[in-house]
Amino acid sequence: MKKTNVFGVILAGGIGSRMGNVEKPKQFMEIGKKPIIIHTIEKFVLNPQFERIIVLTPRQWVKHTQDMIRKFILQGDRIDVIQGGETRNETIMNSINHIENKYGLDDETIIVTHDSVRPFVTHRILEDNIRMAKKTGACDTVIPATDTIVESCDHKFITNIPDRSCMYQGQTPQSFKAKKLRDVYGALSEEEKAILTDACKIYVLKGEKVELVNGEVFNIKITYPNDLRVAESLLGGDASC
Amino acid sequence: MKKTNVFGVILAGGIGSRMGNVEKPKQFMEIGKKPIIIHTIEKFVLNPQFERIIVLTPRQWVKHTQDMIRKFILQGDRIDVIQGGETRNETIMNSINHIENKYGLDDETIIVTHDSVRPFVTHRILEDNIRMAKKTGACDTVIPATDTIVESCDHKFITNIPDRSCMYQGQTPQSFKAKKLRDVYGALSEEEKAILTDACKIYVLKGEKVELVNGEVFNIKITYPNDLRVAESLLGGDASC
Repeated sequence: MKKTNVFGVILAGGIGSRMGNVEKPKQFMEIGKKPIIIHTIEKFVLNPQFERIIVLTPRQWVKHTQDMIRKFILQGDRIDVIQGGETRNETIMNSINHIENKYGLDDETIIVTHDSVRPFVTHRILEDNIRMAKKTGACDTVIPATDTIVESCDHKFITNIPDRSCMYQGQTPQSFKAKKLRDVYGALSEEEKAILTDACKIYVLKGEKVELVNGEVFNIKITYPNDLRVAESLLGGDASC
Repeated sequence: MKKTNVFGVILAGGIGSRMGNVEKPKQFMEIGKKPIIIHTIEKFVLNPQFERIIVLTPRQWVKHTQDMIRKFILQGDRIDVIQGGETRNETIMNSINHIENKYGLDDETIIVTHDSVRPFVTHRILEDNIRMAKKTGACDTVIPATDTIVESCDHKFITNIPDRSCMYQGQTPQSFKAKKLRDVYGALSEEEKAILTDACKIYVLKGEKVELVNGEVFNIKITYPNDLRVAESLLGGDASC
């Protein structure tokens, strides 16, 4: 195994305690005859810079995810499927602890964290993330806001319309020097942890630099039922993805 | 003609001086075998609350737009096609002046302004706009931000990640009591006019109330080439639009 000290971290949900009787998390829905999460994992597998790819899923879906990987991915031996935490950030912490225990962690270890339901991430975006995280220590993938952004804190009247030229829509990957991320997160109070659901926001509030990486309009998160149709049309499309 | 004092204002571009040799503005691209702008106009035509529907296009596209309306829309007699202005807000002012000259304007005259390239606006959204504009004087159609919103004023590092629960993505329609909008806009300096490209922002900066109307995720603006495919899949889809 090549020791690159760069790890893919694919976030596919936490312990799943609040999921009730939902049939199947959306990462297992199929587009182009494969589960969405498989498309996503493939993008990481194709990049030799990733020493390992850690996939974090709800407890009860670990085995199913492993089965899917065995079924669809030839080079599945670089992938570990483990259980996520109670929140997105706890899930990321699980991945860092796993890397430390199994592969060793130092100040330069990079994690590239990515939503399992963003299968259209590109090689270029992954490369830019790795390069920028090595250089700056943290980066976030964004696109310029296409819509006007409107602020309303009472959810009834507009309180502000910020200058659109400063506004971006966050995507993933978000990439970090893993040890530092764990240190900064560990120093938060329980209250802060509850509020700071975005890993990059932890850095911003602590005055740490997070550099921007250009995303792509088509690097969509499959969230709504209609996104599945959009995703099918993106898959059937030209070489842009 | 029913005197409702409510007017649809469909924004399809200004004088077009900066368009160079572009072949066809995107509102004339076809989805479901009809130009996008026709789909949009139809949504307004189907609502009897609109006394007239004013369509504003670049000068050189006025005739073509009229031809398209004659070809595709049976009740085309409620539609006026006129030339837009140099900016989005100037185009809106053209519509207000046109209404004043041809149909009369009073304090209660409502305009429902809408992007010509948002064909998936619904009857419910139009009704809510009319009701809210009558009540509050101004409203903006928005959806809760699906992505995390990231602010970067230097376009290199994140400067802020605002609380997502306060953030919305602006769509259209934006609806106003027309006379007041013209008054508020008219009181701006030339400098302010150049900066305030969003009509609702004029109100917000002047301390005037703008109420939120719930949009729809599928009320997309057709901006990028890929949006055309998305739009086709929305058209072919279920009854949600």
